[in-house]
Amino acid sequence: MSDDSIKTKDKIAPLPTIRRIPSYLRLLYEYRKEGREWISATDIAERLSLKPIQVRKDMAFTGITGKPKKGFVVSDLIDSIRGFLGWDMMSDTVIVGSGALGSALIGYSGFSEHGLNIIGAFDNDEAKIGSLIHGHKVYDLKDIASVIKDNDVTIGIITVPAQAAQSVADKLVEAGIKGIWNFSPVKLRVPECVIVEKEDLSSGLAVLSVKLGAHLCTD
Amino acid sequence: MSDDSIKTKDKIAPLPTIRRIPSYLRLLYEYRKEGREWISATDIAERLSLKPIQVRKDMAFTGITGKPKKGFVVSDLIDSIRGFLGWDMMSDTVIVGSGALGSALIGYSGFSEHGLNIIGAFDNDEAKIGSLIHGHKVYDLKDIASVIKDNDVTIGIITVPAQAAQSVADKLVEAGIKGIWNFSPVKLRVPECVIVEKEDLSSGLAVLSVKLGAHLCTD
Repeated sequence: MSDDSIKTKDKIAPLPTIRRIPSYLRLLYEYRKEGREWISATDIAERLSLKPIQVRKDMAFTGITGKPKKGFVVSDLIDSIRGFLGWDMMSDTVIVGSGALGSALIGYSGFSEHGLNIIGAFDNDEAKIGSLIHGHKVYDLKDIASVIKDNDVTIGIITVPAQAAQSVADKLVEAGIKGIWNFSPVKLRVPECVIVEKEDLSSGLAVLSVKLGAHLCTD
Repeated sequence: MSDDSIKTKDKIAPLPTIRRIPSYLRLLYEYRKEGREWISATDIAERLSLKPIQVRKDMAFTGITGKPKKGFVVSDLIDSIRGFLGWDMMSDTVIVGSGALGSALIGYSGFSEHGLNIIGAFDNDEAKIGSLIHGHKVYDLKDIASVIKDNDVTIGIITVPAQAAQSVADKLVEAGIKGIWNFSPVKLRVPECVIVEKEDLSSGLAVLSVKLGAHLCTD
């Protein structure tokens, strides 16, 4: 298996497909809100500046087949995508670190649409422990193992500073977490059975910077 | 030119290369802090769980040539990477939206290392206008054109809610911004000469979710 794709139950899905799929879902929620029943790959492609063939290929990975000339039933496509991403089942999740980024994430109300049920946050700052951030309790980092085990938490989001990230990851793994969404700049060492997805904002900024530098427009 | 690469002055750099480069830079800063003079592609590969050949190819895009058996002089490699990314020159930048995510970004002290000089933030909330967030002034959104022009701002970071994003982008473009780092979930319509890089956290979450779902470990 290459690093650029993921083997699922039925087929190997390329990473760019998986990364594009949430934007389809967002558009589909808009369509549903507007009461529209059908959507075509051409509509989707146009709205998201993609090629229709690309959209059709991506959709096929989710296991759905469109109807010629009509496209997809909006609610069926939503179900198909949510099932493919596993977002039809809620994963209990904790956020470790309640600094600026952690607080911003705790306040993100869209997580439930993304299959995440936020159980609470953890911090080692006495001033924060016991307080509520956007309605979620901040627990003492010392209690992380018991909270994770008691609530059967499967995903941990790490937003602590670099120097604390590995020790937090070790605690999460020891408590039985299955997946880590890592916002720290550290490359975490975890057992093979634990999935880590690293969110590196500086990657996006690098792409923006290089594009700006390569830019040939003169006006 | 494909969507998966960027043509720079000298060569076409693949997007995955550009996205990896900031993590090299981070490691190099660590090496420099530790007072180490040399670094090899093998060291870098090992520390970041990459293949040495991949690291060597990526480095070549920045225009540097290593020395056999010794690798690269740390400070030269830092200069080469910063030059490649354009991070050796500061871009004056504004953040539009001072909600949870905007505030988190304003507080990120690493921006200057990434070539961004934050001029200030903008909001339309009377309660926030005139206040300081992490030492940066929050301006009235109404004044955005004059602040951008007076300070020769080139980059705008959008963190406003979806329904306000396009109108903010229009204002930034009209004021002469060259690049937009878009954290809103909206696909922005801008003139061809304006670069937009969309930061979609749900993409990373989708990858994590699919990997978790495809996971075969049973323990």
